Amino acid sequence: MFSKVALIGVGLIGSSMAHAMRRAGLAAHIAGYSHRETTREKARTAGFADSVHASVADCVRDADLVVLATPVGTFAELTREMANGLRKGAILSDVGSVKAAVIRDVGPFVPDGVHFIPAHPVAGTEQSGPESGFAELFDGRWCILTPPAGADLQAVETLKSFWQRLGSNVEVMDARHHDLVLAITSHVPHLIAYNIVGTAADLETVTESEVIKFSAGGFRDFTRIAASDPTMWRDVFLNNREAVLEMLGRFNEDLSALQRAIRWGDGEMLFEFFTRTRAIRRSIIDAGQDVAEPNFGRRPRNTP
Amino acid sequence: MFSKVALIGVGLIGSSMAHAMRRAGLAAHIAGYSHRETTREKARTAGFADSVHASVADCVRDADLVVLATPVGTFAELTREMANGLRKGAILSDVGSVKAAVIRDVGPFVPDGVHFIPAHPVAGTEQSGPESGFAELFDGRWCILTPPAGADLQAVETLKSFWQRLGSNVEVMDARHHDLVLAITSHVPHLIAYNIVGTAADLETVTESEVIKFSAGGFRDFTRIAASDPTMWRDVFLNNREAVLEMLGRFNEDLSALQRAIRWGDGEMLFEFFTRTRAIRRSIIDAGQDVAEPNFGRRPRNTP
Repeated sequence: MFSKVALIGVGLIGSSMAHAMRRAGLAAHIAGYSHRETTREKARTAGFADSVHASVADCVRDADLVVLATPVGTFAELTREMANGLRKGAILSDVGSVKAAVIRDVGPFVPDGVHFIPAHPVAGTEQSGPESGFAELFDGRWCILTPPAGADLQAVETLKSFWQRLGSNVEVMDARHHDLVLAITSHVPHLIAYNIVGTAADLETVTESEVIKFSAGGFRDFTRIAASDPTMWRDVFLNNREAVLEMLGRFNEDLSALQRAIRWGDGEMLFEFFTRTRAIRRSIIDAGQDVAEPNFGRRPRNTP
Repeated sequence: MFSKVALIGVGLIGSSMAHAMRRAGLAAHIAGYSHRETTREKARTAGFADSVHASVADCVRDADLVVLATPVGTFAELTREMANGLRKGAILSDVGSVKAAVIRDVGPFVPDGVHFIPAHPVAGTEQSGPESGFAELFDGRWCILTPPAGADLQAVETLKSFWQRLGSNVEVMDARHHDLVLAITSHVPHLIAYNIVGTAADLETVTESEVIKFSAGGFRDFTRIAASDPTMWRDVFLNNREAVLEMLGRFNEDLSALQRAIRWGDGEMLFEFFTRTRAIRRSIIDAGQDVAEPNFGRRPRNTP
């Protein structure tokens, strides 16, 4: 499908893309870039790339697909660095979790004749680094493309087909709408998970050892999400401020109503609220976006 | 260990106790009670009880261990109903997620000569009903006993050994402290999970279909917890009001600080906050309270 794909960043997403490209035979040459020697070494050991580079210009040379897969705060500078080396007709894409800011920041550095088509695969794990990737990460998940106004339709189709062959479903969406949707389905959930883990860690009345021991009451699930990469998530919040603050405002309003119901003993309100949230779980399972097994199929460690 | 154990309530916890008792051979006779005929029928079909009763008095007759395993709001009335039929020397316990309110409400109805030892197994799934139970539910999890002042030490030891033989670790704790610990490790996590699912369902700018499709960004994890039994959780919040409101106050304070950091673009504060929450995840895995596999070991449905 491509003669050379340049992965600018070889963490969880970049390395998983490489594994999935190999599985489907999508690239004759996969080049990886990292600015850190330890990361390049890990990438070489993992062996998913045909070449690993310390220089962005080297990595993108002659590539017909270039994918930014570092934290979104680095995209503009990386694009500026690579701009002169980008091949005419190449597709430049990314995997960032925010899209309007990426278009705003990267767009100005994209040379004429290069097709800039931002993308966001809605998939991941709480792990990071070149050794955490695997080919199945995108299977059955959704990848959202947010082509800017006037984008080349052929390039959009090519990228769409690429993500489908990596295992994803693909949806095309306006960048601002993407940011709103992801604020509620991903960004605010991460923020409140980070927050409750922080709150629990800071209590004087409950020890950390108690928090750990009794975490199976629900808390442990939040710690998985709160173990996600801090740099990536810092950049997400800095670059999707408006949508996150808007959704957080709604979250807070609703939480105040629940808090009030608890204070005044309004059992009817609580029961009603807790009842209507069950249906969404069912729909997510039916849509193949989560497993049906109780407790995500986890079993206690000492179970035979 | 016991000649007859009466399970007042045969939902997820009651039925799992029955399965675990059979696995360890702890009771010569297991009696189950439910006020609903459909539930009794399901319990009979599942076959974990030797007898299934529509009357609490019948169920507890001659039992040397009686366990309240219905929503905590029903405990006082059930105890009043069974009080005359309780055997001298019997242990009366429960599995409620709150403890001070249970001692306050149930205590007055416990006849002399009956040992009232409240308990809380910190284990569960998002499913409910007699068909959802399984013997391994308590394996490696913690069960907290909160004996009231002056409780019979022999009875506490017996109940402790019982829960250990069901697979649990056991800790003895003051009821008020239990309620504080569980407010942060279980009750507030459930409340915010219910809340974000509710918020997402009510948005005008993002469709429910979008919320479902793109839930793998983090949201889907919250829907599991928000699929828990509404009656049980209504009663938890009505009966642990003070501790929940206190912990919710802390959560809100911390969330305001994060919100402010996002508004003012304070990347340093965000990065620092997101970094220190990783260690707690590691400790929970090391303590055997969660699996180490990324994404809780879930794999996309269409993975070979």
